[in-house]
Amino acid sequence: MDYRHKPLDVAILGATGAVGQRFIQLLDGHPWFSVVELVASDRSAGRSYAQAARWVLSGNAPEEVAGREVLPLDADLQSRIVFSALPSDVAKTVEWRLAEAGHIVCSNASAYRMAPDVPILLPEINADHAALINVQRQNHGWTTGGLATNSNCTSAPVAMALAPLRPFGIQAAQVVSMQAVSGAGYPGVPSLDIIDNVVPFIGGEEPKVEAEPRKMLGTLAGDHIEMLDCVMSATCTRVPVLDGHMVAVSVRFADSVSEDAIIAAWENFTGPEPVPGLPSAPPQPVVVRSEPDRPQTRRDRDTGGGMATVVGRLRPCPVMGGWKFLAMAHNTVRGAAGCSILNAELLVERGYV
Amino acid sequence: MDYRHKPLDVAILGATGAVGQRFIQLLDGHPWFSVVELVASDRSAGRSYAQAARWVLSGNAPEEVAGREVLPLDADLQSRIVFSALPSDVAKTVEWRLAEAGHIVCSNASAYRMAPDVPILLPEINADHAALINVQRQNHGWTTGGLATNSNCTSAPVAMALAPLRPFGIQAAQVVSMQAVSGAGYPGVPSLDIIDNVVPFIGGEEPKVEAEPRKMLGTLAGDHIEMLDCVMSATCTRVPVLDGHMVAVSVRFADSVSEDAIIAAWENFTGPEPVPGLPSAPPQPVVVRSEPDRPQTRRDRDTGGGMATVVGRLRPCPVMGGWKFLAMAHNTVRGAAGCSILNAELLVERGYV
Amino acid sequence: MDYRHKPLDVAILGATGAVGQRFIQLLDGHPWFSVVELVASDRSAGRSYAQAARWVLSGNAPEEVAGREVLPLDADLQSRIVFSALPSDVAKTVEWRLAEAGHIVCSNASAYRMAPDVPILLPEINADHAALINVQRQNHGWTTGGLATNSNCTSAPVAMALAPLRPFGIQAAQVVSMQAVSGAGYPGVPSLDIIDNVVPFIGGEEPKVEAEPRKMLGTLAGDHIEMLDCVMSATCTRVPVLDGHMVAVSVRFADSVSEDAIIAAWENFTGPEPVPGLPSAPPQPVVVRSEPDRPQTRRDRDTGGGMATVVGRLRPCPVMGGWKFLAMAHNTVRGAAGCSILNAELLVERGYV
Amino acid sequence: MDYRHKPLDVAILGATGAVGQRFIQLLDGHPWFSVVELVASDRSAGRSYAQAARWVLSGNAPEEVAGREVLPLDADLQSRIVFSALPSDVAKTVEWRLAEAGHIVCSNASAYRMAPDVPILLPEINADHAALINVQRQNHGWTTGGLATNSNCTSAPVAMALAPLRPFGIQAAQVVSMQAVSGAGYPGVPSLDIIDNVVPFIGGEEPKVEAEPRKMLGTLAGDHIEMLDCVMSATCTRVPVLDGHMVAVSVRFADSVSEDAIIAAWENFTGPEPVPGLPSAPPQPVVVRSEPDRPQTRRDRDTGGGMATVVGRLRPCPVMGGWKFLAMAHNTVRGAAGCSILNAELLVERGYV
Repeated sequence: MDYRHKPLDVAILGATGAVGQRFIQLLDGHPWFSVVELVASDRSAGRSYAQAARWVLSGNAPEEVAGREVLPLDADLQSRIVFSALPSDVAKTVEWRLAEAGHIVCSNASAYRMAPDVPILLPEINADHAALINVQRQNHGWTTGGLATNSNCTSAPVAMALAPLRPFGIQAAQVVSMQAVSGAGYPGVPSLDIIDNVVPFIGGEEPKVEAEPRKMLGTLAGDHIEMLDCVMSATCTRVPVLDGHMVAVSVRFADSVSEDAIIAAWENFTGPEPVPGLPSAPPQPVVVRSEPDRPQTRRDRDTGGGMATVVGRLRPCPVMGGWKFLAMAHNTVRGAAGCSILNAELLVERGYV
Repeated sequence: MDYRHKPLDVAILGATGAVGQRFIQLLDGHPWFSVVELVASDRSAGRSYAQAARWVLSGNAPEEVAGREVLPLDADLQSRIVFSALPSDVAKTVEWRLAEAGHIVCSNASAYRMAPDVPILLPEINADHAALINVQRQNHGWTTGGLATNSNCTSAPVAMALAPLRPFGIQAAQVVSMQAVSGAGYPGVPSLDIIDNVVPFIGGEEPKVEAEPRKMLGTLAGDHIEMLDCVMSATCTRVPVLDGHMVAVSVRFADSVSEDAIIAAWENFTGPEPVPGLPSAPPQPVVVRSEPDRPQTRRDRDTGGGMATVVGRLRPCPVMGGWKFLAMAHNTVRGAAGCSILNAELLVERGYV
Repeated sequence: MDYRHKPLDVAILGATGAVGQRFIQLLDGHPWFSVVELVASDRSAGRSYAQAARWVLSGNAPEEVAGREVLPLDADLQSRIVFSALPSDVAKTVEWRLAEAGHIVCSNASAYRMAPDVPILLPEINADHAALINVQRQNHGWTTGGLATNSNCTSAPVAMALAPLRPFGIQAAQVVSMQAVSGAGYPGVPSLDIIDNVVPFIGGEEPKVEAEPRKMLGTLAGDHIEMLDCVMSATCTRVPVLDGHMVAVSVRFADSVSEDAIIAAWENFTGPEPVPGLPSAPPQPVVVRSEPDRPQTRRDRDTGGGMATVVGRLRPCPVMGGWKFLAMAHNTVRGAAGCSILNAELLVERGYV
Repeated sequence: MDYRHKPLDVAILGATGAVGQRFIQLLDGHPWFSVVELVASDRSAGRSYAQAARWVLSGNAPEEVAGREVLPLDADLQSRIVFSALPSDVAKTVEWRLAEAGHIVCSNASAYRMAPDVPILLPEINADHAALINVQRQNHGWTTGGLATNSNCTSAPVAMALAPLRPFGIQAAQVVSMQAVSGAGYPGVPSLDIIDNVVPFIGGEEPKVEAEPRKMLGTLAGDHIEMLDCVMSATCTRVPVLDGHMVAVSVRFADSVSEDAIIAAWENFTGPEPVPGLPSAPPQPVVVRSEPDRPQTRRDRDTGGGMATVVGRLRPCPVMGGWKFLAMAHNTVRGAAGCSILNAELLVERGYV
């Protein structure tokens, strides 16, 4: 499929925030999608994007976006595809209304992630979960609309690093995260709180990291996902880095597994067709580093355009009787906007759009 | 015992390095000890301390230290007590020679920590291990000499947080650390490696954190320590903070334990006599914070003059079937120089000096 | 004068903010003053201080403060001395009302700094400006009330470093600042804006730095201050440091001056009686560092309990035909709360309280 | 000229260091140049690049470089063009020997910058200085060899921002820099020295910043450069940022100049032919930002692929009687490797290669 000559129009909800900006940046020059509608809160609506948004990424907002008028949350949107970077409470009503109105909503919000008929898509590992959109249409009487979410930014590297290891029988996983400040949006974390500091708490994060990967790694069973039968425990901390969430993972398997088998599983892992050929898919979803001190947050977060999960330091874990390793992914790319875009690409190719 | 009117002379080995400087800072105005000998490598020997050492802590070296001549490693020392901040390979020969020559060596080096007749002292939790000094004297024919170590800087908060929980039957513990750059000494970690970064590897650290706490929490059995029968697993990372090592700990107990019981164990924990009255002992060895986002590295590292271990965020760990929490201690105070000084105070009171 | 046996009651306006907290921290154990009233916005009033304030400094709020009820801005205060850490717009009405009601208001706000009959006190350099309080009383019919301000946090090290050089005829000064994030209060500077970044703009700062030092260094002329006849130019930037404002200063003198003369002027500088003996006065107001790489923000900001200005790197400035140097002071101590407290001590000793 | 089908071989001296790595990164995929020789100290020579170099930039060394053997400093090089990232003392002998042997040496080292017959090239502002290579050949009897330098990393944005203003008669300039840690190479600045700190001293830097721009902005006068008749004064500081040097500049002109005239001069500034079309030339050498808080180091350092100088905050300077502004450039791209590559491109097009 080639959309280069006739790009699909897309809208961005919450376009002025930090994740909204990442959507705009990643969609700039996208071969299939063209950003034509920018939606934000009443405070911003009616102003040009350049006036409404304080651009917090490097450089500038793309020129053609800068001049666009920001639309209000209740606007009638024309775009078939709607990306959402809304806060969860606002997402709850707005996303539903848009799916009902026939739009395909690809959301970064947590509002519907755990709903039985909504998938948390990470295309390389669960592209088949997209079928839940048909269930939604049946359940709610929607015709062309649908709702797909991407995971919490910390759940992403956890699920991606564990997915290739499913064949070994994942029974339990312990996760300790070291998360970037961009995960909290803008203005987000005050500098007085985080310079020269570690804050070992992120509100609402640990329950998500203990639940979402189990759904993402679960099995489509007719009209719902059967969650992976695996116990998870998470400790989430904030550290003074800008982008990139590092997780230390210890995992117990049903089977005895060798180091080589795990490395091979990671290196050979690839998504099902058509995922590897999607515009935003990285060359390799899981990149294994063999150096003793990798992955590192700053040096590895842009691997695969920020869409890869980088793993390393695989060693036996005597406590779990299994293995432990480090995994890292870019939290606002793979863990947010980039994944949502990849999800939309998948839905286009699978015919949901 | 009151040494105020006749302070004991002490020497510092490796006095020009980062931990050496912390020794000098903490001993400035100490009620019992007076720094009269500063020892460093040949490069520094013969120069005044002010010339030889690039002071990396706040402010200045104390004036009376600044003017002292630095002695070479093979100097005949007059001080009864010798504090060592030497690198491990140098410590191996120098510390032994000094113990043999009759000095009480309180060392921060790792060289002898795991030797059967050398204690890793953390006075609040294992003051009785000091008796190994008698074993040393018997084993090596020493008369007045002896050798006591303090633990690795990350082992310290792990052991201190676990010690009050020994009655519940510690069976296994998982540790993920977020460590400060001062742990690597000076010049230590290049800024290009750590600003806006997490480096998930510290050479030689994890084996120490998996072994030392088991010895520290072990039982004196005649001429050696029977290590605590507990499986440990550690992942050690470096984060962009100056001082203070944070550890995320998950622990499994033999018994079923309540949250209240753990909190009470921590809050009521205190060292045996004479530890609580020693000059460098903090008012409370373990300080429990009840806020959801504490301990924090920068805001809590100076608790109890940097000698307390601050714990918080106690929650059940579904994977371990036990509990998880955060603990934090100042790595160059409680985890290095401060602990060595407390050890020396204990040895004085117990009559080994 | 000795207030130890009967401390004076003081109130703190804006007690829950970052500067308010610094007031509380510095007044904890103060020999003359006892904090008995805590005032904040309506949002906080009626709650205990511990509930109303998110403590952002190290450790905890002092216990006796933590339990106190926060009073509303329109409360009738009993304290003779009122410290103000209010935002400037709120300060405008509240401070005036309190001075009118007979309180001595020592304010960190900018609202009245440039008013003709209000002094910007930096006791070591312009203690005589306190006499303007008498002018206020005459102008406004106040009896026991009065209003004194301290300078902007960047003006403080500029004025302090220049004051000893007044005898040489200061004609012009260029200032470039590198300021800490704590200068913006809490939450203040978002971490996404300042980690790995320099932001070369601080709203409203440059005009203050170009005006306030000239008033502080000016001459009391009856009922007003004659400003120092000196041209000033400022560029103010924010850098990723927590506390401490560094300024690079180039100055042109009327006379030809030697390096030795400047060093001597700094080292011999001392405030007029009774300033050197006040509880919050540092041993030396200006501390000269002779090392090539000092002052440094982190290593020197606590000099003299954060009340000293540390200077160094004096070299000729070929462009100004004069001299250039670096100066640094702790922005929330000497540049804010600490200076306000010193001002109050001066006013007590001079009989205005 | 099109070298795409037959790229020129180039060598890199000091290839394993931080600037050497930046050369490799920027030359990866270069349309004209192909890296075929990597040279480093004896410690590295004989090993593969991957083994010899600890890659400190993001991601990895390009694969075809990683496998190459590192050559010793005295190797006979085949490449016509040699880029040098050597320390200045080593550069002194090695660069001369290579120029003598017929190579075109484009050096980032300071060793020969101020030599009368060596240009400090910044192609947009002084491409004609390249003619000094003919002078070198005459002076030293070289035939095909030659030596061109790029400036110190802080001199680059100063010279670039001032160049468009030469027509107004630059008489004096004051510079205060806030420099990134990457300017000191690797390992370079210890993290203990710079986290939460400003270090107001960089050895040898200020004299360079006071001299080099005057040469770069000077006039070719036969066999040497007549330096710009302008007084300069510099204060150089290190701040906790990774890349990008910010400078605060105040300048006095012979003529009275309007704000609009300066902005126009910057925006219309462009290099002489063939500079704008060179592969490494940015679309605009000087980019003017109109926002009140720009340029910012992190957000603007990659402008024009790191080759632009970004300026902003133009305001009158009452002390200089002229104007003041901020300028920022990427120190290891425009201020080092990137500029050297642009210089080589110029020398190719001008026929010196």
